[in-house]
Amino acid sequence: MSETFHAMWRSLRPIGRSAASGGYRRYAWTEADADCRLWFRMQAEARRLDVETDRNGNQWAWLGDPTAGDAVVTGSHLDSVPDGGAFDGPLGVVSAFAALDELRARGAVFKRPLAIVNFGDEEGARFGLACVGSRLTAGRLTKEQAYELRDADGISLPQAMEAAGHDPATIGADPERLAKIGAFVELHVEQGRALDLSGDAVGLASAIWPHGRWRYDFAGEANHAGTTRLVDRRDPMLTYAETVLAARREAELAGAVATFGKIAVEPNGVNAIPSLVRGWLDARAADQGSLDQVIAGVEAAARDYAGRHGIDLAVTRESFTPVVDFSDTLRDELAKILGEKTGEKTPVLGTGAGHDAGILSESIPTAMLFVRNPTGVSHSPAEFAAEDDCVAGVLALADVLEGLACR
Amino acid sequence: MSETFHAMWRSLRPIGRSAASGGYRRYAWTEADADCRLWFRMQAEARRLDVETDRNGNQWAWLGDPTAGDAVVTGSHLDSVPDGGAFDGPLGVVSAFAALDELRARGAVFKRPLAIVNFGDEEGARFGLACVGSRLTAGRLTKEQAYELRDADGISLPQAMEAAGHDPATIGADPERLAKIGAFVELHVEQGRALDLSGDAVGLASAIWPHGRWRYDFAGEANHAGTTRLVDRRDPMLTYAETVLAARREAELAGAVATFGKIAVEPNGVNAIPSLVRGWLDARAADQGSLDQVIAGVEAAARDYAGRHGIDLAVTRESFTPVVDFSDTLRDELAKILGEKTGEKTPVLGTGAGHDAGILSESIPTAMLFVRNPTGVSHSPAEFAAEDDCVAGVLALADVLEGLACR
Repeated sequence: MSETFHAMWRSLRPIGRSAASGGYRRYAWTEADADCRLWFRMQAEARRLDVETDRNGNQWAWLGDPTAGDAVVTGSHLDSVPDGGAFDGPLGVVSAFAALDELRARGAVFKRPLAIVNFGDEEGARFGLACVGSRLTAGRLTKEQAYELRDADGISLPQAMEAAGHDPATIGADPERLAKIGAFVELHVEQGRALDLSGDAVGLASAIWPHGRWRYDFAGEANHAGTTRLVDRRDPMLTYAETVLAARREAELAGAVATFGKIAVEPNGVNAIPSLVRGWLDARAADQGSLDQVIAGVEAAARDYAGRHGIDLAVTRESFTPVVDFSDTLRDELAKILGEKTGEKTPVLGTGAGHDAGILSESIPTAMLFVRNPTGVSHSPAEFAAEDDCVAGVLALADVLEGLACR
Repeated sequence: MSETFHAMWRSLRPIGRSAASGGYRRYAWTEADADCRLWFRMQAEARRLDVETDRNGNQWAWLGDPTAGDAVVTGSHLDSVPDGGAFDGPLGVVSAFAALDELRARGAVFKRPLAIVNFGDEEGARFGLACVGSRLTAGRLTKEQAYELRDADGISLPQAMEAAGHDPATIGADPERLAKIGAFVELHVEQGRALDLSGDAVGLASAIWPHGRWRYDFAGEANHAGTTRLVDRRDPMLTYAETVLAARREAELAGAVATFGKIAVEPNGVNAIPSLVRGWLDARAADQGSLDQVIAGVEAAARDYAGRHGIDLAVTRESFTPVVDFSDTLRDELAKILGEKTGEKTPVLGTGAGHDAGILSESIPTAMLFVRNPTGVSHSPAEFAAEDDCVAGVLALADVLEGLACR
């Protein structure tokens, strides 16, 4: 790939990177986020694109008239999970700019407006809700709901926006913007090993598994760890531990995935029985029935354990996304374009990960391209994609954009 | 009790109190700690006692000549665990001042020097090691070891001392000071329900159970919670959960107590399988054999689980205190003094909690008085002691000090 492609990665690499973990901490409306946004603006301006930030904090770089309608949009996000990898999000944005460079080198003439987008707060690492930028735009999160979001320090989303210089007063559904978009194609590093197992560099998305987050608050009684008899204890850590193991069992039974990856304990002292253990369950399955089975099974087990140990349990569904079937028409069109170029059939795969493309798929035709992840590792500093595969992704995206916007 | 007694509680109550939990957050070398130290100095000066802070940050209020030798010392600590109660520590300090007031009202003439002490950093809430002030003084913690202690923000103990205006250069063993002390009597709220079950307001300590803290580092592999197949996971939360349950089982088998009350997870994201789960085991038993059985049993179970799940486990003993048998001679003397006053036998009980008195018992004759805790709740905002019992504690302490220092 061109020097420009490598230069993009070089300039993006240090932003928000933790020296301790080697992973990224690019959280919404932080300094690292501002640096990512500046990077996006500089890339867009270097390519003579018109940059705007929409009411919900998403960045758009336009080639052609945004108001003309039937625009082809590509891009992804630049924020990260705590200690995330280099590719999750950025690969889609870098590839979008690189694909535009490739098309210009081919002398492509655009017949539809083209935009590259950087959606804000996709990972939800700071405020606990994923895809805030696209949810707001699609009307899947109201202004009132967004105003209730708070980070671990108690800072609300509007406060964080304001501190970062973004006016939160006008956030909310933006149907006029969506009405001008004819297709959204998001390229993303695969987060599992399906392409590695099938031996393909690039694939197309079929659907996003239904998935959600449930908060389990186990309330017991704080007490001295050295002097409280076992029979007198109401220790919520025990109930939490049993629930973690129940989640694994239920997921195995249903062929799904379930994870307790985040925990908050009060008072979290070595010699204190906790008063509260708060655990977050992430659960996903290929279909709604399997997911329901997991969720009901875990909660029933947790309530059973809680009842026997004198623990008060509250379960709160913090977010939920039903199954997302991407547009058949757009996927078939992309498969045709790619097939004409390569002579090969592009594999089609589902995924357990949520994406802005999934949020937008109810409003506009969306499709996703996945790039092979040889280890399947994701949301980790060890996340990796081979350069050849990244280049294959850029060329596939360029082909797709050319097929959609230049014919 | 006198108005002075109530005034002491009123002035101490707001210091370091969390409005959210109602519990105390008085951690070593913080602002709340400085406020507690100022409170101590004001109480001492109001009683015309000579106040000094020793090299290790412990505060002493002297009546009589500190260099004369054979001093009678009483007191406790003012710091707290996270969201601790009002009595654990402060009851011993407040009661010391109140007992002095009582003795002066009785017209007592002191034949031995008397000191009231506020030991620094007893709970170890900030730097993870309990009884730092008394350990340093007794030579049970070296300056080099103390310099290695760090809080959750990476601030070292000497840095924290310096920021609070205490010179850390001269911390370390202080045998000259201990050589001038003839007896140390610590009054403390009971942290179990033994006195409640026996129906007594005040008791004497027999021994402190051997106890320690072990850090369990379970290292797995961070990965995406939605896209990583269960069979591809190395999820340390599962191994942690199994170990928590094993600790409870082993404690039950040995008639001991074992608790996982503190946890740190990386990256601690809702949609990330953790790379690291760090849990702290607090374990205590009436004798060393039972404790060894628990510790060996929990570690064996954890290693078994870790091996089967591809988890790397490191177990580190962070602190350990062998069984502490308080001075028989001093306890018999106290029992005699109290028996002469009340005509009743004072109950003698063991405890699973560590205390500065336990640390000092190897160096000087020490004894402890316990005041009834009607619920047994400790290390919690709900910790409670009835006013009548607190008054009984003050009078018992006054009797003991009179018997030791005024005869």
